[in-house]
Amino acid sequence: MPHIALPENMPGITAGFAFRPETAKPMRDLAHVLLHESGNEGLSSRDRELIAAFVSSRNTCYFCQTSHAAAANHLNGGDASLSNHIVRDYVSAPVSPKLKALLAIAAEVQIDGKRVTPELVAEARAQGATDHDIHDTVLIAAAFCMYNRYVDGLATVQPRGEEMYRDMGKMMAENGYRRADG
Amino acid sequence: MPHIALPENMPGITAGFAFRPETAKPMRDLAHVLLHESGNEGLSSRDRELIAAFVSSRNTCYFCQTSHAAAANHLNGGDASLSNHIVRDYVSAPVSPKLKALLAIAAEVQIDGKRVTPELVAEARAQGATDHDIHDTVLIAAAFCMYNRYVDGLATVQPRGEEMYRDMGKMMAENGYRRADG
Repeated sequence: MPHIALPENMPGITAGFAFRPETAKPMRDLAHVLLHESGNEGLSSRDRELIAAFVSSRNTCYFCQTSHAAAANHLNGGDASLSNHIVRDYVSAPVSPKLKALLAIAAEVQIDGKRVTPELVAEARAQGATDHDIHDTVLIAAAFCMYNRYVDGLATVQPRGEEMYRDMGKMMAENGYRRADG
Repeated sequence: MPHIALPENMPGITAGFAFRPETAKPMRDLAHVLLHESGNEGLSSRDRELIAAFVSSRNTCYFCQTSHAAAANHLNGGDASLSNHIVRDYVSAPVSPKLKALLAIAAEVQIDGKRVTPELVAEARAQGATDHDIHDTVLIAAAFCMYNRYVDGLATVQPRGEEMYRDMGKMMAENGYRRADG
């Protein structure tokens, strides 16, 4: 049961957003820019969603991990094996050396930003990452340390099972995170 | 030295904001709503800034801790002893039982949202906290887990010493976090 009187029948972060529209708007806007709108700038939306799912898995936030993995799966032709592999062991996952190097940075940010070393950044750059890619990776990882804590800290309802998340992930991947009504 | 080519002579988060205005806007908007604009809704801006400084201290983010403590100090008649006390040991600080109970929630969110217990929430409610107060406390704590990781994860320049932060805190406390140009 949620810690506060959240609207019923709304899963995860959507209940928090409905409870407090004033904070929902910038939180939605940030996700939209970072994961959706910037998907043609260096990192694809698929890769951005994979980083989001990966960080959420490290924070063991079921709702965020499952929904963003579902968005990544949708952008990966419906194939869930890649997001599963990355969450389990990104080092051996069949992705580019550039994405692996960025996931290594995200893994440190999830614990503490100060753990990002010049060596990790140099490796990402050697694998083709731009400053823009590195910036967005740090911020996606940091932002999911917020979203995850928000979802779990309110004890939102997080239904188990893949079905609901598949539909949600498709909508997130196709439409992004901004509400049509602003 | 910052990990990426941030604009020079800009301290802490301001350099990240200048590097990427598209993400700066929602990040500024969120801080504005949570810390400034909502300062007449249950929790005062001073108490909101104290929670921000407290969480930033737990994340050992010098820039955020010092600047938000400075904002709280400005809203506390220029007296820095309260923010110092809270960062050192909030349990014995001379603040209301309600704010202490909310700081106890923030302390758990800083580690993991799942550590917030019904007992901690019941205690906050017993001390007069509303659902709105509890929501905003969880989100302020969660949001500073983002801001702190962003500031530290880019290895931004964080000048030591209080002087610069005193002026910055005054501006933050008086004007909030939105940019005049949108």
